[in-house]
Amino acid sequence: MIKVGVVGGTGYTGVELLRLLAVHSQVELTVITSRGEQGSAVADLFPSLRGHLDLNFTAPDIKALASCDLVFFATPNGIAMKQAVGLLDKGVKIIDLSADFRLKDHQLWSKWYGQPHVCPELLDQAVYGLPEVNRELIKTARLVANPGCYPTAVQLGFLPLIKAGLVDTSSLIADAKSGVSGAGRGANVGTLLCEASESFKAYAVPGHRHLPEIRQGLEQAAGSSVGLTFVPHLTPMIRGIHATLYAKLTGDGKDLQALFESFYQGEGFVDVMPVGSHPETRSVRGSNVCRIAVHQPQDANTVVVLSVIDNLVKGAAGQAVHNMNLMSGLPEAQGLESPALMP
Amino acid sequence: MIKVGVVGGTGYTGVELLRLLAVHSQVELTVITSRGEQGSAVADLFPSLRGHLDLNFTAPDIKALASCDLVFFATPNGIAMKQAVGLLDKGVKIIDLSADFRLKDHQLWSKWYGQPHVCPELLDQAVYGLPEVNRELIKTARLVANPGCYPTAVQLGFLPLIKAGLVDTSSLIADAKSGVSGAGRGANVGTLLCEASESFKAYAVPGHRHLPEIRQGLEQAAGSSVGLTFVPHLTPMIRGIHATLYAKLTGDGKDLQALFESFYQGEGFVDVMPVGSHPETRSVRGSNVCRIAVHQPQDANTVVVLSVIDNLVKGAAGQAVHNMNLMSGLPEAQGLESPALMP
Amino acid sequence: MIKVGVVGGTGYTGVELLRLLAVHSQVELTVITSRGEQGSAVADLFPSLRGHLDLNFTAPDIKALASCDLVFFATPNGIAMKQAVGLLDKGVKIIDLSADFRLKDHQLWSKWYGQPHVCPELLDQAVYGLPEVNRELIKTARLVANPGCYPTAVQLGFLPLIKAGLVDTSSLIADAKSGVSGAGRGANVGTLLCEASESFKAYAVPGHRHLPEIRQGLEQAAGSSVGLTFVPHLTPMIRGIHATLYAKLTGDGKDLQALFESFYQGEGFVDVMPVGSHPETRSVRGSNVCRIAVHQPQDANTVVVLSVIDNLVKGAAGQAVHNMNLMSGLPEAQGLESPALMP
Amino acid sequence: MIKVGVVGGTGYTGVELLRLLAVHSQVELTVITSRGEQGSAVADLFPSLRGHLDLNFTAPDIKALASCDLVFFATPNGIAMKQAVGLLDKGVKIIDLSADFRLKDHQLWSKWYGQPHVCPELLDQAVYGLPEVNRELIKTARLVANPGCYPTAVQLGFLPLIKAGLVDTSSLIADAKSGVSGAGRGANVGTLLCEASESFKAYAVPGHRHLPEIRQGLEQAAGSSVGLTFVPHLTPMIRGIHATLYAKLTGDGKDLQALFESFYQGEGFVDVMPVGSHPETRSVRGSNVCRIAVHQPQDANTVVVLSVIDNLVKGAAGQAVHNMNLMSGLPEAQGLESPALMP
Repeated sequence: MIKVGVVGGTGYTGVELLRLLAVHSQVELTVITSRGEQGSAVADLFPSLRGHLDLNFTAPDIKALASCDLVFFATPNGIAMKQAVGLLDKGVKIIDLSADFRLKDHQLWSKWYGQPHVCPELLDQAVYGLPEVNRELIKTARLVANPGCYPTAVQLGFLPLIKAGLVDTSSLIADAKSGVSGAGRGANVGTLLCEASESFKAYAVPGHRHLPEIRQGLEQAAGSSVGLTFVPHLTPMIRGIHATLYAKLTGDGKDLQALFESFYQGEGFVDVMPVGSHPETRSVRGSNVCRIAVHQPQDANTVVVLSVIDNLVKGAAGQAVHNMNLMSGLPEAQGLESPALMP
Repeated sequence: MIKVGVVGGTGYTGVELLRLLAVHSQVELTVITSRGEQGSAVADLFPSLRGHLDLNFTAPDIKALASCDLVFFATPNGIAMKQAVGLLDKGVKIIDLSADFRLKDHQLWSKWYGQPHVCPELLDQAVYGLPEVNRELIKTARLVANPGCYPTAVQLGFLPLIKAGLVDTSSLIADAKSGVSGAGRGANVGTLLCEASESFKAYAVPGHRHLPEIRQGLEQAAGSSVGLTFVPHLTPMIRGIHATLYAKLTGDGKDLQALFESFYQGEGFVDVMPVGSHPETRSVRGSNVCRIAVHQPQDANTVVVLSVIDNLVKGAAGQAVHNMNLMSGLPEAQGLESPALMP
Repeated sequence: MIKVGVVGGTGYTGVELLRLLAVHSQVELTVITSRGEQGSAVADLFPSLRGHLDLNFTAPDIKALASCDLVFFATPNGIAMKQAVGLLDKGVKIIDLSADFRLKDHQLWSKWYGQPHVCPELLDQAVYGLPEVNRELIKTARLVANPGCYPTAVQLGFLPLIKAGLVDTSSLIADAKSGVSGAGRGANVGTLLCEASESFKAYAVPGHRHLPEIRQGLEQAAGSSVGLTFVPHLTPMIRGIHATLYAKLTGDGKDLQALFESFYQGEGFVDVMPVGSHPETRSVRGSNVCRIAVHQPQDANTVVVLSVIDNLVKGAAGQAVHNMNLMSGLPEAQGLESPALMP
Repeated sequence: MIKVGVVGGTGYTGVELLRLLAVHSQVELTVITSRGEQGSAVADLFPSLRGHLDLNFTAPDIKALASCDLVFFATPNGIAMKQAVGLLDKGVKIIDLSADFRLKDHQLWSKWYGQPHVCPELLDQAVYGLPEVNRELIKTARLVANPGCYPTAVQLGFLPLIKAGLVDTSSLIADAKSGVSGAGRGANVGTLLCEASESFKAYAVPGHRHLPEIRQGLEQAAGSSVGLTFVPHLTPMIRGIHATLYAKLTGDGKDLQALFESFYQGEGFVDVMPVGSHPETRSVRGSNVCRIAVHQPQDANTVVVLSVIDNLVKGAAGQAVHNMNLMSGLPEAQGLESPALMP
């Protein structure tokens, strides 16, 4: 039994984590903090958890958290980097679902996140929590930086091609579409139902914070710098990311399907679909799976990869639980076995 | 381990049953039949089940089904009543998710379902599978008629009032709203996204097949005939039923909240919410719970009950699994523990 | 050509008014005020109006407004009652889309709106702007109180029955469902896409501000006090109200269809649909029409009326333009001729 | 007054055409044909048109159509090419909203549409009805091939770049997203609300029929062959297309914003938005406008163009009315003046 705490349990990432942890057979949830909701019952804010979780939100308190084996940060950017050292010093493991420890270069982080990084000394030991890339490092990590949602979908789609040296990495294109839950549970006009439903738009085309994160991962795989155009879009649905990836093939005659199947062989949470497939985001709704299909339309030299995840699960809370399982020596799929909710 | 078969696994009720059974620790799914899809893999039709279910659809075959301990019918009305006898004779238990065995009066059934009832002799032993009413009978039943979705939400909302004799049963009103999955997976213009989204309408106001089913249940509780106006509506969402129930109080001074809480005390799948609550359908999405709130607006003599379920779970497949658990001596909640998917 | 001003043009009611006025051939829009957006172009906030409206928001300014023939208030409750006298004194006509002048009893208003009414002396001359009821009064009014959205749909559905004395007015039930735009363009968690889509709920069951407004209208028609239970619901769509109305018939043998058709004969914006119809909200999306169907299910003594409107048009801005046309001697349908947007 | 007929008025393109033509001041609608619905009132099938259109569907009849000045074909592919000659011979002008006359190469057409082209002799005189490209030819055309929805959005976005010779035309990418109405009003499982809402997917990645149409238009502009990867996606909304276009800049230092503004100067239905904009599909819902924004993210050499239309208006019926206006010497915007419906 692992004693677990959650810092910041009122956003969508937080409540999704609670949904998964509440029925995880090896987890004892002991602390859920929220500055804004302290004192009130978690199940009052989220009636979907009535009968599953009998805890109140408490004020953030280092002592209570220090009694946990592992603490998740589901906080806005800039919080975890202030509190991590204190907890690590007490022997508590940390999985940070915010962006604080994702970039290795703290100056790059400061530029994109608009604030100085107050804990650059931990960046080296923080392990980027993409299990398909860093499984062994995660197992022994004290601090895991849980990947962003777009970066998860985009990297898993591009990695087999880049690792195999099959594409021109100077002009990659990632056209990504996200459900609205990616924008969080904050009260903003732009994500009201009346603004965001029945409409589709791109956003942050000049530059999105996930761009440097994706680039870092792809460059590590490529062993060289990478040119990437990343265009995120807002899609009128709650959950799901669909990344449509474009790259120029540099060689030819390669069996791309076989490449992908072999690359992800044995991976429990990446599903390479049959030739000719078009994965739908709903096929992973509520589940921790990334489904991928690879196409070479009209036999031209542009490869198209379709990669779908649930942004709140494989793109956030589910991947965090996967990381927790790895860090705790549990079966990887523990608590992540439910099929997607369809329809 | 129970050997289970599913007849008709291609509709929404069927696939929801598969989602639940695929991860039920005490179930071995052995046969899934479909006339239209025989030979193809279940996971090809429903990619959400890839990795969870490795079966092909087979043609309906009494021999294969007869080797099961229990068979679910998730078929259109009129099928189960033709095949039930054959299976019961082989000692197979049956849970019928269609309407074939729900009404005790076969002539009434014929009138509403537009076909003669070919198996009236089983109607007496068929148990109406609403566990909150018939728990003990279900435990020993060979044939369970799983309730309709509207009837589940409406009966659970009205029963405490009727049983307590607190309302005028001559003029009950059930204004019910359903997500579109209630209309099934058939290809109809009326349930296309472009027809049914961004719109709201009533339907079948002159008379809906669930009317006699609800009336039968309420009359059994009342011990007398009941006057009921039932108006179903189509709501632009996938899952969920919200029943808004109106009744005239005949006495006064009664603590309705206490009445409901006491009536459902110990029931694992009925959640009486705190005073003043407005349950949302999403709070039960994907879960087997019925959440209920009771109001007496402006202290007038009309009581208003709000009752929400997921039509595919508590209104169909989940309740069927609950019944299977009861018929098989398993813990009632086995395989039904997941919290709702929110958001 | 009428010179028109709009106070408060940034909410959904406001922008809908701008959509209609921008292409109204007899209207010259001269002032659009907004405290929060002053200085910015209207078409920057609402790109749907690019090319149709070349005005900037200005600070509220009595002088600019006083130069108009008619001013619409599309403001939160409590604003119009402070500014009306000043404008009326300058000879400017006013149509108030807020609730300030809807109730004749200022103490009742204070109770429901939680603030004192600062302008009770105008309540007598304010005309309740439901053209089907008050057409002649509206033509000569200086101050029109534009009805609320629910009150429009509910009153139009009940009035023929009440006026004909056919129903028991002591126990009327109005079960009403609204799209989310009825909740306005404010940044609230509850109306985020991720909170309000794919879900359905009742709200304000203990008491909603539209209750006294509806009751006032029905009592005026009945000539006596009226018992009404009003339950509003939030529906996962942008526009539309569907009111399902229930009443007990006191006589019998009456041809309800003929009654409704005759009651609304000649009314351009009320459409009594054929016998057996189920009006959909999308059939009035973007149009100023109220479509109504009347049913008597199972020939019992409960009559069911289905009444649908677009809450932003017939329930707000369109009805306001209708009132403007009446007050200005224009053809009633001027600027309101577009059919609904379907699909 | 133009006498107008519509062949095939029961699909979404057809009913949208009826919505626009019903209130077009210079149009007299005289015939609407439908094999399946003949005899029934148009307004019975589409209650949104009640009060606006008092015609019945009739069987297709060359004589009735021949009395029209202009006939629209809103039929499935393969119908117009069989009937065009007969009508043209009677002096009737034709606007074909299907794909029959869009491709100049009838063998290419046969390959993509899976049937022989029975009227190749008309392909030369058929004018491709993209007014921004072929305005003068359209004015005198007898037969106009109305462009497809994707081709409209994609071509309008790429044309300024290609005409200016600024991009590498060997590797263009068009990542396009469409609302579900693009799939038509046919009863298909794939476009049911429960299948297509709350989900996002690509489709037809190996090859979509609009690919050769787009390529034909771009090659005409480029004066040479063009390499294009075109990936369409299904978006959970009713109306709207968002095309995200990627091209490599071959020169540099060019002011792309000025280029686009100058290219579309004077065009009433193309709106080049300000620098940094992200057009939303809802900003054109129900209107005939294409809104475009051009970006050069991170100052790299990939240009990104965002182009949005309403697939049923600028992508079909609205553009057809625009063409009718041009062919009939009417003001171009006649009947197309309404702003978009927002929200």
